[in-house]
Amino acid sequence: MRNIKLTIQYDGSRYKGWQRLGHTDMTIQSKIESVLSKMTNENIEIIGSGRTDVGVHAIKQVANFKTNSNMSTLQMKEYLYRYLPEDIVITNVDEVEERFHSRYNVVSKKYMYKIYNNEYHNPFLRKYTVHIPKKLDLELMKKASSFLIGEHDFTSFRSSKSKKKSNIRIIYSIEIIKKDKLIEIIVHGNGFLYNMVRIIVGTLIEVGLKNIQPEYVNHILLSKDRKLAGPTAPAKGLYLLEVKY
Amino acid sequence: MRNIKLTIQYDGSRYKGWQRLGHTDMTIQSKIESVLSKMTNENIEIIGSGRTDVGVHAIKQVANFKTNSNMSTLQMKEYLYRYLPEDIVITNVDEVEERFHSRYNVVSKKYMYKIYNNEYHNPFLRKYTVHIPKKLDLELMKKASSFLIGEHDFTSFRSSKSKKKSNIRIIYSIEIIKKDKLIEIIVHGNGFLYNMVRIIVGTLIEVGLKNIQPEYVNHILLSKDRKLAGPTAPAKGLYLLEVKY
Repeated sequence: MRNIKLTIQYDGSRYKGWQRLGHTDMTIQSKIESVLSKMTNENIEIIGSGRTDVGVHAIKQVANFKTNSNMSTLQMKEYLYRYLPEDIVITNVDEVEERFHSRYNVVSKKYMYKIYNNEYHNPFLRKYTVHIPKKLDLELMKKASSFLIGEHDFTSFRSSKSKKKSNIRIIYSIEIIKKDKLIEIIVHGNGFLYNMVRIIVGTLIEVGLKNIQPEYVNHILLSKDRKLAGPTAPAKGLYLLEVKY
Repeated sequence: MRNIKLTIQYDGSRYKGWQRLGHTDMTIQSKIESVLSKMTNENIEIIGSGRTDVGVHAIKQVANFKTNSNMSTLQMKEYLYRYLPEDIVITNVDEVEERFHSRYNVVSKKYMYKIYNNEYHNPFLRKYTVHIPKKLDLELMKKASSFLIGEHDFTSFRSSKSKKKSNIRIIYSIEIIKKDKLIEIIVHGNGFLYNMVRIIVGTLIEVGLKNIQPEYVNHILLSKDRKLAGPTAPAKGLYLLEVKY
């Protein structure tokens, strides 16, 4: 069988997240599977690099599927572009080695979080950023983020719903970039626990608002207590930016 | 009576345009008038700098209204921010001289048109740009636009529904700016006929696609025949950028 890798961009606003759910077809996975199954006349199941939550967006999500179809990858790309809803776009279709697995082979991932930092919100960005009216102190946020770089137990920064056995992950970098009134926080790590990026961002926002000191983030990390970290930042500001293999 | 000037930003996607209509409250004007009337306990009518069509956006629309209210402009701004829908934001509230009139006093206006020029559309920009899959030749478009600068009879570039007596207008400048895959066309003029910017953009797109020669735009202009110009570009790419007084 052929093994096909998809690179996927989506506006998550309308969806119940990535993963197929029994009671609704409003997930990214089920929309794509449904078009692929019609395209190939097979019962296609796709494997994503990982789930994204309700309302989370993606710039470059990756998934793969097996098929006996003899369509070219270009034909597949055009078929998907034509029949998928406007808010899901397959940017690349590539044939890959049979052993390639979108989830098992992940080496690292990058997430981006977008904050609109201005007194009043922006009508064009309201679905794609989180609005923080009070001015954030970026230098304090950068200082706070430095405590999270490296290999740590991120128990304080994962949802209590997380079921992973180990809470140890490596964060390679956290970039905080200001573009006029937009702040982008880009987190690169070898893996992420449930809600980890959103809790990190929620905590960095607390630092930027001067509600907690940058050094306190180190204390939160060492305490392994979710209750000490900041709130989970809203889904609409979060983007799966890149998956590295 | 006090005369209050509003600067207004809106995402026009959900609305039937600027102007109040009898059979629906889904216009920008009626949404703002309704909040202002509640705020002041008066029957407020606002005067806009001009109409925007169904689906057109604004970065800095201007309107004014008369009131006896003794609220401060800051209180008004906060009230409007709180009670207007998320896709309409009043960015400035200023008290102005009694004789200021948002429409009569306009000296010039700037419109912006956004094109997303890439093989596949972008899920995050689909409501805010027009997608042109084929690569546009910007140099040809810039050359074509030069024929429109200055004082001309723009009969070829106005909707046949236009009811203005004179079709003579001055265009001061047309800037065509490329930002990665996004093309912004900014038109500055002393006034605009019905659909004028959208027909200019529709014609420039035809030039960029090499369907017509840049010099042919001069011929279109001189012919005073709407049928020779390009199609009316879709509303969702158009923004009222600035009104000068």
